[in-house]
Amino acid sequence: MATTSWVPVPAGSPFTVHNLPYGVFSLPDEDPRVGVAIGNHVLDLAPLAASEYADFAGVFTAPTLNPFMALGARAWHAVRHWVTERLTDEAFRSLVEPELVPADQVRLHLPFEVADYVDFYASEHHATRLGRLLRPNEPPLTPNWHHLPIGYHGRAGTVAVSGTPVTRPCGQHLAPGETSPSFGPSTRLDLEAEVGFVVGTPTVAGQRVSVDEVREYVFGVVLVNDWSARDLQAWEARPLGPFLGKSFRTSVSPWVVPLAALDAATVAPPAQDPAPLPHLRGTNDFGLDLDLEVSINDQVVARPRYADMYWTPAQMLAHLTSNGATLRTGDLLASGTVSGPGEGEYGCLMEASAGGTRPLTLADGSTRTFLRDDDVVTIRATAPAPGGGRLGLGEVTGQVRPATP
Amino acid sequence: MATTSWVPVPAGSPFTVHNLPYGVFSLPDEDPRVGVAIGNHVLDLAPLAASEYADFAGVFTAPTLNPFMALGARAWHAVRHWVTERLTDEAFRSLVEPELVPADQVRLHLPFEVADYVDFYASEHHATRLGRLLRPNEPPLTPNWHHLPIGYHGRAGTVAVSGTPVTRPCGQHLAPGETSPSFGPSTRLDLEAEVGFVVGTPTVAGQRVSVDEVREYVFGVVLVNDWSARDLQAWEARPLGPFLGKSFRTSVSPWVVPLAALDAATVAPPAQDPAPLPHLRGTNDFGLDLDLEVSINDQVVARPRYADMYWTPAQMLAHLTSNGATLRTGDLLASGTVSGPGEGEYGCLMEASAGGTRPLTLADGSTRTFLRDDDVVTIRATAPAPGGGRLGLGEVTGQVRPATP
Repeated sequence: MATTSWVPVPAGSPFTVHNLPYGVFSLPDEDPRVGVAIGNHVLDLAPLAASEYADFAGVFTAPTLNPFMALGARAWHAVRHWVTERLTDEAFRSLVEPELVPADQVRLHLPFEVADYVDFYASEHHATRLGRLLRPNEPPLTPNWHHLPIGYHGRAGTVAVSGTPVTRPCGQHLAPGETSPSFGPSTRLDLEAEVGFVVGTPTVAGQRVSVDEVREYVFGVVLVNDWSARDLQAWEARPLGPFLGKSFRTSVSPWVVPLAALDAATVAPPAQDPAPLPHLRGTNDFGLDLDLEVSINDQVVARPRYADMYWTPAQMLAHLTSNGATLRTGDLLASGTVSGPGEGEYGCLMEASAGGTRPLTLADGSTRTFLRDDDVVTIRATAPAPGGGRLGLGEVTGQVRPATP
Repeated sequence: MATTSWVPVPAGSPFTVHNLPYGVFSLPDEDPRVGVAIGNHVLDLAPLAASEYADFAGVFTAPTLNPFMALGARAWHAVRHWVTERLTDEAFRSLVEPELVPADQVRLHLPFEVADYVDFYASEHHATRLGRLLRPNEPPLTPNWHHLPIGYHGRAGTVAVSGTPVTRPCGQHLAPGETSPSFGPSTRLDLEAEVGFVVGTPTVAGQRVSVDEVREYVFGVVLVNDWSARDLQAWEARPLGPFLGKSFRTSVSPWVVPLAALDAATVAPPAQDPAPLPHLRGTNDFGLDLDLEVSINDQVVARPRYADMYWTPAQMLAHLTSNGATLRTGDLLASGTVSGPGEGEYGCLMEASAGGTRPLTLADGSTRTFLRDDDVVTIRATAPAPGGGRLGLGEVTGQVRPATP
């Protein structure tokens, strides 16, 4: 098939014909349904499928991607092939063009119903720096860290689509020098730049997904901002882990980029020492060469690289199912904060401000240790596209609102 | 209304006319739908509502309680009044009797679709003993324990109805004396006897539910067995909390007992020192006088009392929403292991066997530190009923199956 589309794709658009991410959109007074982003347009899949690919018409009228994702990898590939053909072959133009909606006319919704949300901790750079800040009298990494991708369950019900405001949470925290906690608005509100993997194919109880099977189960990729209240988290998290410091809001990008669109972005998995146990090894494992960009009020504060992650997406999936736990369509596996080794590659402010001790200076001259009310945080990412150039994962953005009294 | 039913209720049945729990049942070749347990029968609500309470006919044909629970406390009370009247007034007998199905003919399903599952740690006795076993060189309770009901998110997708087998999970654990982990079947599989609170009424983002509002949001109560692999948990849980040691299976009882059925079981909340912060206090808070019974292969191994819990259900709910996190219909808040102060009141084997060092002897002469393959674990509970006598929460049961190779 051709590698250019008859749909105009502006230079720098994340949504080239090599990308074709899926989302859920609506027009005023119409029901949400499934679309594909191409340049500055959204392809309305339901009517197109109704006219020439009726097997799929039903799943595209749904208000989430879940019914489509549940069909499995064979269906995903068939639809991707069909969409690509229609957007690259001029012969389909008269058929398809009426179903292209200008992107600025649509409202984008949470693209999938989140089943379970698991947040991992897969960056060694992030985990090491956080360990030093949170447990200064102990080795920064716990003894388990290099043996398994540590993760925990987050709150699925507060995952929201990009653009949803983020109200500063209240909660208990222990003020410095105090022995009793107080309750009030978080004073250490942070962002966490992450990459999320969305499960399409469910499993049955007891089924372990191997490292080499990830493409059969993971439908696609989103950007994640796992907003974090560091003061709440520090007080609550022992011994059972983070809870209210994370559960108030998690934001995801509206466009789910198919794993197949990232073929040119796969890289060798990182060297791992010690070698993981056999159930966390495969012959086709891969990392992803995604370049993230984190900005506050349109000023870039970090450029972490996903290629620096220690644990791979396939290893996270294999670990999650190694005890026989089932996957459901809509499970979200987030990577944990993406951070690199150097300054300017820190995917959260806790690292960038050294635990709030060393303020960042933004381009406008203002400083931040943690987020202020009204701050707009945006995370973007790009990846190599087939044949050169780059495609994008779009963005996840959100504005901080003052705490509710 | 009368306090006895024209439906025969055998002596000792948990399902008296004061109880009237809701569940989801099916008959062979029929769709699952909502029923109420009374004695040895299930009242088929959908046809009865269709003939005389049409407002509710739709929600009772659903395969989960969620649509009914989402209607809110006013609807729950109206339906409870309606059902009670029909089962106590002989005048309704000819109308209602055709809709009574013998309980031994039905299959019971997971009664609600679990939205988010949060597991608390509300027993001071349990938390203290676990702390001593897991962190012998530190104070048993972390500094936050008396200030907030510690909790974490579990895996909603592996919550299953009573009777579902529990396959022994595999996972990484660190053998004594080793520094590198190995992978294999858990050798320390445990039960945890808990009580779960099922949310009916959803909230909007930012809304905090106060301690005194719990009856507006909590629909009812189930029994929970939070199966735990202690060896997996010990290795994985630092620093982000339990994950695969818990996520393979959580079992719940099939009948959701309305909070209104437990009016006679409410007791003064426990004394709390220090006094909780204001957002965790109310003027109508209450504990619950539930007597639990844990058995292995029909041999009672523990009788913990829920009245011994430190944190109340209302405080768990207020804490969970104190950061503005939303509730969804179907959220499950489990109490954490219910344990009392004395021997014979330990709600898990980790406590009862002192971390596996002191085997229990069952009535049949066999011994246990942790669970063996084929063991059947059953948790039951009863509560005071209005006017004397007791009602029951039914039971949650499950059999351990050998690990999958």
